[in-house]
Amino acid sequence: MGSSRITGGLAILGPSEAALLRLLDDTFRRWGTDAGAGEISAPPVYPVDDLANLDLYVNFPHLALVAGGLRTPTSGPAKGRFTTEQAAEPHLGLSTATCFAAYLLYQDTRVPADTLVTLVNRCFRKETHFDGLRRLLSFQMREIVAIGSFEHTQSVIARYRERIEEFLGRLSLDVEVQAATDPFFQGGARALLQRLEPVKYEFQVDGVAIASVNTHRNFFGERCRITVGEDDAVAFTGCVAFGLERWVGALIDRHGGAQQALTRVEQALRATGSA
Amino acid sequence: MGSSRITGGLAILGPSEAALLRLLDDTFRRWGTDAGAGEISAPPVYPVDDLANLDLYVNFPHLALVAGGLRTPTSGPAKGRFTTEQAAEPHLGLSTATCFAAYLLYQDTRVPADTLVTLVNRCFRKETHFDGLRRLLSFQMREIVAIGSFEHTQSVIARYRERIEEFLGRLSLDVEVQAATDPFFQGGARALLQRLEPVKYEFQVDGVAIASVNTHRNFFGERCRITVGEDDAVAFTGCVAFGLERWVGALIDRHGGAQQALTRVEQALRATGSA
Repeated sequence: MGSSRITGGLAILGPSEAALLRLLDDTFRRWGTDAGAGEISAPPVYPVDDLANLDLYVNFPHLALVAGGLRTPTSGPAKGRFTTEQAAEPHLGLSTATCFAAYLLYQDTRVPADTLVTLVNRCFRKETHFDGLRRLLSFQMREIVAIGSFEHTQSVIARYRERIEEFLGRLSLDVEVQAATDPFFQGGARALLQRLEPVKYEFQVDGVAIASVNTHRNFFGERCRITVGEDDAVAFTGCVAFGLERWVGALIDRHGGAQQALTRVEQALRATGSA
Repeated sequence: MGSSRITGGLAILGPSEAALLRLLDDTFRRWGTDAGAGEISAPPVYPVDDLANLDLYVNFPHLALVAGGLRTPTSGPAKGRFTTEQAAEPHLGLSTATCFAAYLLYQDTRVPADTLVTLVNRCFRKETHFDGLRRLLSFQMREIVAIGSFEHTQSVIARYRERIEEFLGRLSLDVEVQAATDPFFQGGARALLQRLEPVKYEFQVDGVAIASVNTHRNFFGERCRITVGEDDAVAFTGCVAFGLERWVGALIDRHGGAQQALTRVEQALRATGSA
């Protein structure tokens, strides 16, 4: 991994790995903006109530990380932790996915039926184990998010699904496309629908999902009261997500080093005319 | 502020503001990489012990935010907070500044005397009040970090100090350059040195510091055991920091809108030949 430093699920990437990550992110961002997406920018933490409203603490309590201040004056941490007496009650939630910002930005508004945005952000998941760049506590996720009509979300997902498969082929990455269950829909009618028709497809390389396409139906539209059209119908949403450190890791594994992988990505971009 | 959404110190920037922020970040990044800086990439959280080793909880306990998991199974938050019984003991610290990653990356190593890196990251400060883009809980900070000889750190700081002043002039931003005290050096010999010779200069627009240059002497080199040269002398460090949302806010205030500000930055970059 050259000069990178990875400990406890936290990776500081040295220049070669960081350059590869930036090139990948620039590529996926352009996939979005070339299709008309506006890029937005968001913090990686939100009030816990905003995330609770998205069922985060119902569906992913084991993955969630929450933050708050310290009761001052306080002494420092001991054995790698502050005590719960030293810490104030946590009022912030660290985000587990990038796309939440899009729904929060458009909360309580009416949007065009073909709304498309893109953003990159840090995400956080308290996994039970960490594994190099394949499974990190903090990682970067680029997303392209469709909001509006159901048809719009499906056409965006179909387009990028094809584009991802084509790009992975050019990078000589062996991919398995897997239908997956989305814990956002563990109960109720949505779970039934999901068994009838998968709403998440993962692009797995060596058993790790490096990208996914996700149909949320009108879950986020309902929760964030986003509407579309003259009759204020609840908006549908869908997203295309790229786990950037996982792409970096998969490409380094495949091509022997960050520099070689960077060259290979540049070649693939030139070949597709999107460099 | 157009389509941005700012609540409780957290800003989701809409496309116009986000484009302005990206242009500024690209500019400052290029200021670093054109001078030979390698770009690195880091998470915005660290083990609390790593931050305690940098005196963060001695010097900034009131600003610090710490994070941990939830004791599962748990119910959701109530009144905007989890209780300390629901939360596990916090083991992660949210970073208050971007440059820490550079010292942690080079911890326990010997570096060239003219090491230069750049990175952007999310930072977090639990301020007592928040104010639009001028004072946020979570914000983005681009830094250019010099590590090596004392002379190297001073020449980097002198060069960018001049460059920042020149750039601010082209953007028609009225700036006051203020010597400031750095809470990292509140006690002991370093505090005395600081009174004799300021180690921090802030570039203030309307009373808000939008950039700063900082001399840390050998504080971070000592704490992170970074050495330089054949005799393994402790490395000196210095950094140049840009508060990106504050630049966005100051430019919008000055030029009447994100779009106008973007045009003005593009003009300034063309005029200096760095577009």
